[in-house]
Amino acid sequence: MDFRFSLALTVRDYECDFQGIVNNAVYLNYLEHARHVFAKSVGLDVVELATRGINVVLVRSEIEYRASLRTGDSFKVALNVNRCSRLKFAFDQSIYRIPAECAEATYIRSNLILKALMTATALNEHGRPFQAPELDVLFSNEPLSRD
Amino acid sequence: MDFRFSLALTVRDYECDFQGIVNNAVYLNYLEHARHVFAKSVGLDVVELATRGINVVLVRSEIEYRASLRTGDSFKVALNVNRCSRLKFAFDQSIYRIPAECAEATYIRSNLILKALMTATALNEHGRPFQAPELDVLFSNEPLSRD
Amino acid sequence: MDFRFSLALTVRDYECDFQGIVNNAVYLNYLEHARHVFAKSVGLDVVELATRGINVVLVRSEIEYRASLRTGDSFKVALNVNRCSRLKFAFDQSIYRIPAECAEATYIRSNLILKALMTATALNEHGRPFQAPELDVLFSNEPLSRD
Amino acid sequence: MDFRFSLALTVRDYECDFQGIVNNAVYLNYLEHARHVFAKSVGLDVVELATRGINVVLVRSEIEYRASLRTGDSFKVALNVNRCSRLKFAFDQSIYRIPAECAEATYIRSNLILKALMTATALNEHGRPFQAPELDVLFSNEPLSRD
Repeated sequence: MDFRFSLALTVRDYECDFQGIVNNAVYLNYLEHARHVFAKSVGLDVVELATRGINVVLVRSEIEYRASLRTGDSFKVALNVNRCSRLKFAFDQSIYRIPAECAEATYIRSNLILKALMTATALNEHGRPFQAPELDVLFSNEPLSRD
Repeated sequence: MDFRFSLALTVRDYECDFQGIVNNAVYLNYLEHARHVFAKSVGLDVVELATRGINVVLVRSEIEYRASLRTGDSFKVALNVNRCSRLKFAFDQSIYRIPAECAEATYIRSNLILKALMTATALNEHGRPFQAPELDVLFSNEPLSRD
Repeated sequence: MDFRFSLALTVRDYECDFQGIVNNAVYLNYLEHARHVFAKSVGLDVVELATRGINVVLVRSEIEYRASLRTGDSFKVALNVNRCSRLKFAFDQSIYRIPAECAEATYIRSNLILKALMTATALNEHGRPFQAPELDVLFSNEPLSRD
Repeated sequence: MDFRFSLALTVRDYECDFQGIVNNAVYLNYLEHARHVFAKSVGLDVVELATRGINVVLVRSEIEYRASLRTGDSFKVALNVNRCSRLKFAFDQSIYRIPAECAEATYIRSNLILKALMTATALNEHGRPFQAPELDVLFSNEPLSRD
């Protein structure tokens, strides 16, 4: 599969719970972190946006957990993003474990940890969904016109 | 709606992020905590189970975020649970904000924060899904036979 | 010992780490939460203060860890607070495990989890320490004059 | 100053709280993570040790907070470690913010975020402090005899 952006990270021991595996809530942190780093890489600072009263929030998340990350595991959070309506856009995200000494093509087939579809919108200062022009950079790889 | 179990909690300041609202990952903590307290209330200790090599893990989560909790908010995590196949079972969970001085019937109609469907399975000591008899207590309110 | 305020809480499973005990960082959350709930109980909302550009921050923490909390443990976070200079004030905090069926006097002698001395100051909108009059309520039980 | 080990990290947005700065508890995570990565770098896996019933735990922490990290900041966690008694050993840790385009010598003088002294011990399977030979590698740079 073709991803627009990916971020390599390593599990930290404090992120693992009593089962010795990464706690489910922590994956939400990883997914959010990858979205924010991606946004920064195209010029959008989500935290700075919040200081101006514009909050990007999730409206829906769907996650399929296929396997667990363990302490010390290296992994990659990959993502694509697309508008799905005038007000909503969706991040298609996957997390792959990166085995020691292994070509990317190989581990992407066999080390899927989870697949997520995270749907978001922007809220204006009154808490209403709106089409924030600041977010256009997220979709800049889409053709601007189709005619 | 009719819930089998609910747990009242209060947002802690450290659970809020730069947007002043509860961070998305924290809702996963709330949902898990309610599931574990419910399990204990029917005699199942998920942590103790893990020490015997049996791990209850999520295989899928679907969450619709309707509104945000803020610092100091009181809220209720309500749940039902049902088997959805031989190996999988699903928690139907909702989080409601509890307004000051308000009857339950009223706030349940108007203060929905999120709805979640969390599908889980049990893994044996080899990491394979199996039907752990220890989990039967979760479903004990279901009629044992229907003939 | 005599405490000015205390808050009873229960360990949540997700707060325990790979060692099966509450992770050290989580105690900082417990201690902060107790300070903020205490502050609210005397009329000071630390989060609301931050929205006005006044940030209460720690300048020093000293913690002695005596024993560990485990999943399901109930515990009490007790505190006193005193000015220690014109700009600094210190929270003297203790965490006790609450055993099942046990009088307070007994468990306070034998179930000390940690003792903490947390020194804080207020920063104005320029990030400089200053004597915020809003904080006076924290010390209101001190005699106003001694002559 | 001379440090034995250091680890470069970047603040993640979800680690910042309602004040827009890294929450105090998160620094404990950073400090622990650096200690564990250091331990691994000399051949000691603290998580693996826990699975054998040997738990390395903090007995005391002293932290001076000098400045705050903010979202997106890069920083370095530096450490030294020394035995301080037969059963206890202490990590001397510092966190420095790494400014964009700046030589290390310069930022170490001017961008100190915090200094920490974290004292630890090992507990055996009965929860008693003991001198675990597995930990000797942490101190291997010390001369073995001084005569």
